[in-house]
Amino acid sequence: MTDADISMQSPREATPLRVLSGIQPTGRFHWGNYFGAIRQYIELQNVGSSFYFIADLHALTTVRDPALLRSLVRDAAIDLVALGLDPTKATLYVQSDVPEVTELMWLLLTVTPMGLLERCHAYKEKKSKGIPADAGLFSYPVLMAADILAYDATIVPVGEDQVQHIEVCRDLANTFNHLYGEVFTLPKARVLDGAAKVPGTDGFKMSKSYDNTLDLFENPTVLRKKIMRMTTDSRPVEQPKDPHSDHLYQLYSLVASEEKRDAMADTYRAGGFGYGQIKKAIADASDEFFAQARDRRQVLEADHGRIEEILSDGAVRARVQARAVLERARKACGLDRSVQP
Amino acid sequence: MTDADISMQSPREATPLRVLSGIQPTGRFHWGNYFGAIRQYIELQNVGSSFYFIADLHALTTVRDPALLRSLVRDAAIDLVALGLDPTKATLYVQSDVPEVTELMWLLLTVTPMGLLERCHAYKEKKSKGIPADAGLFSYPVLMAADILAYDATIVPVGEDQVQHIEVCRDLANTFNHLYGEVFTLPKARVLDGAAKVPGTDGFKMSKSYDNTLDLFENPTVLRKKIMRMTTDSRPVEQPKDPHSDHLYQLYSLVASEEKRDAMADTYRAGGFGYGQIKKAIADASDEFFAQARDRRQVLEADHGRIEEILSDGAVRARVQARAVLERARKACGLDRSVQP
Repeated sequence: MTDADISMQSPREATPLRVLSGIQPTGRFHWGNYFGAIRQYIELQNVGSSFYFIADLHALTTVRDPALLRSLVRDAAIDLVALGLDPTKATLYVQSDVPEVTELMWLLLTVTPMGLLERCHAYKEKKSKGIPADAGLFSYPVLMAADILAYDATIVPVGEDQVQHIEVCRDLANTFNHLYGEVFTLPKARVLDGAAKVPGTDGFKMSKSYDNTLDLFENPTVLRKKIMRMTTDSRPVEQPKDPHSDHLYQLYSLVASEEKRDAMADTYRAGGFGYGQIKKAIADASDEFFAQARDRRQVLEADHGRIEEILSDGAVRARVQARAVLERARKACGLDRSVQP
Repeated sequence: MTDADISMQSPREATPLRVLSGIQPTGRFHWGNYFGAIRQYIELQNVGSSFYFIADLHALTTVRDPALLRSLVRDAAIDLVALGLDPTKATLYVQSDVPEVTELMWLLLTVTPMGLLERCHAYKEKKSKGIPADAGLFSYPVLMAADILAYDATIVPVGEDQVQHIEVCRDLANTFNHLYGEVFTLPKARVLDGAAKVPGTDGFKMSKSYDNTLDLFENPTVLRKKIMRMTTDSRPVEQPKDPHSDHLYQLYSLVASEEKRDAMADTYRAGGFGYGQIKKAIADASDEFFAQARDRRQVLEADHGRIEEILSDGAVRARVQARAVLERARKACGLDRSVQP
């Protein structure tokens, strides 16, 4: 089905399967980001049409350094392509390259009850801790809704913590449709599998805020050192151990082949191994697992214009979609004067 | 000074005098709107460069009928030009034709403390009355700030009730400039003279919500009837009266020549006249006062494409300015990837 066909249909049935996801460029990606989310996003590029964006407008609520933001956006784009996002299959773009979403955001704001935003986690949490919140954080879910609705997305893969925002998006789309006619396609959340299950170097959930991350494109020597310094327990070498309850084994499982993983599980159960040996195995498996991505990254990094080319092309494709939806919305609420009364 | 010259200078000193004002198209204009505001806006077109917009994005927070909104926008534009706004002097445009303002709004939202918006009158009032507010009303001052800052406006003529919003605008501009460098020009409010002094047909302040308005482009027969039915007091005909405390005299003063006004004041002081006589004088003077505007309106109404031509031309000129400011802002906060790190 071509895009032209799609636009002839009613919005609700326009897109059998369209995946959309955004990634905030607030720092370098780590294993938690990759195995918990990015890998699953990327796999979806084979399932339907898909849109992936680098959420720089959202990042502005926390990143206040222009040079840093620019490099984070560029790095995020390079990382995603290096990790396998295929710009010929998926549309990869930078959020702020599609100004239509901010227009759409205003249209949605006019139908957004305050209570709906006041109940949103991120804002509520900050407020309950007495941290002064800004209106960007508060209205974040409305921009996110615009990001989703602008592409007639049907599936939005998210972590548990973002399910509420998809509900907000559906609420707003419903209200708008109810007031002005069927303009927006209602998206569904697809909760990512095991987003919280990647352990950090200390065994707790891997997270930038715990300073326990293994970064995807860390210098291999630095990464190896970090792996070799991971926290372990003090059980004696000879004691047999349950592999699944050990974070070293869990990390190893992510990057090792099935065969090697099973062999490692046997080693755990047999006992008589040192954690240093496991750590070395993790570092080796990681080197191998990410070798192709690292190579691709190097090529992209060296070819200065390439990633910008991908993003510009993505922006053009994204804007075609976003503009079509925005035009529907503008017409519906009376902003389009070319409609004769 | 040409526009090219302006863009070469630093933003703060870019525009010696640039007036901006927006008008919400939420109904037909009445004498209160005209004498209290519109007339003064229009006079400012002779003082510096000026931008006037029809605030359809703001109107969306209250007007939920697309056909009505379209006709209100069109009528407001025709009314303004009929009343003397000269599109060759001033830039007249429709707010939603300049999508740059919604982009700018998001950038401003990311530096807007919640407290600032929570203290704004319109929202506070609605909330204190227990009326459920929507996020459009809540973030209205930020869109208004974007509307002002996008044009490097230096003067914003407003009623007393809007002074707070200009303060919010200055606050946000200051915060953004402080974080990212001198991007925005700080505007000043110019409080309109006597905005509240136009009495309605019942002697109270003229206001749509009191249903006591005299509409500017009302059918002359209907208007005359409305004037003839105005509330008066029951003092006897022969009693001398103070002209300035009578709303009939106040209304007459607005539309009569100085000479006729003075003669009318003498009549009041002498006594021995009927209110019917005064009402007839108001209707006659009004007919004459608005004759030219009415004629111009008729011509514009008949020439279907003319007003759209004016608005399209205005939008093009407005967008040139707004884009320049938006580009400054985007560059400053790191959204413009063409800047090399």
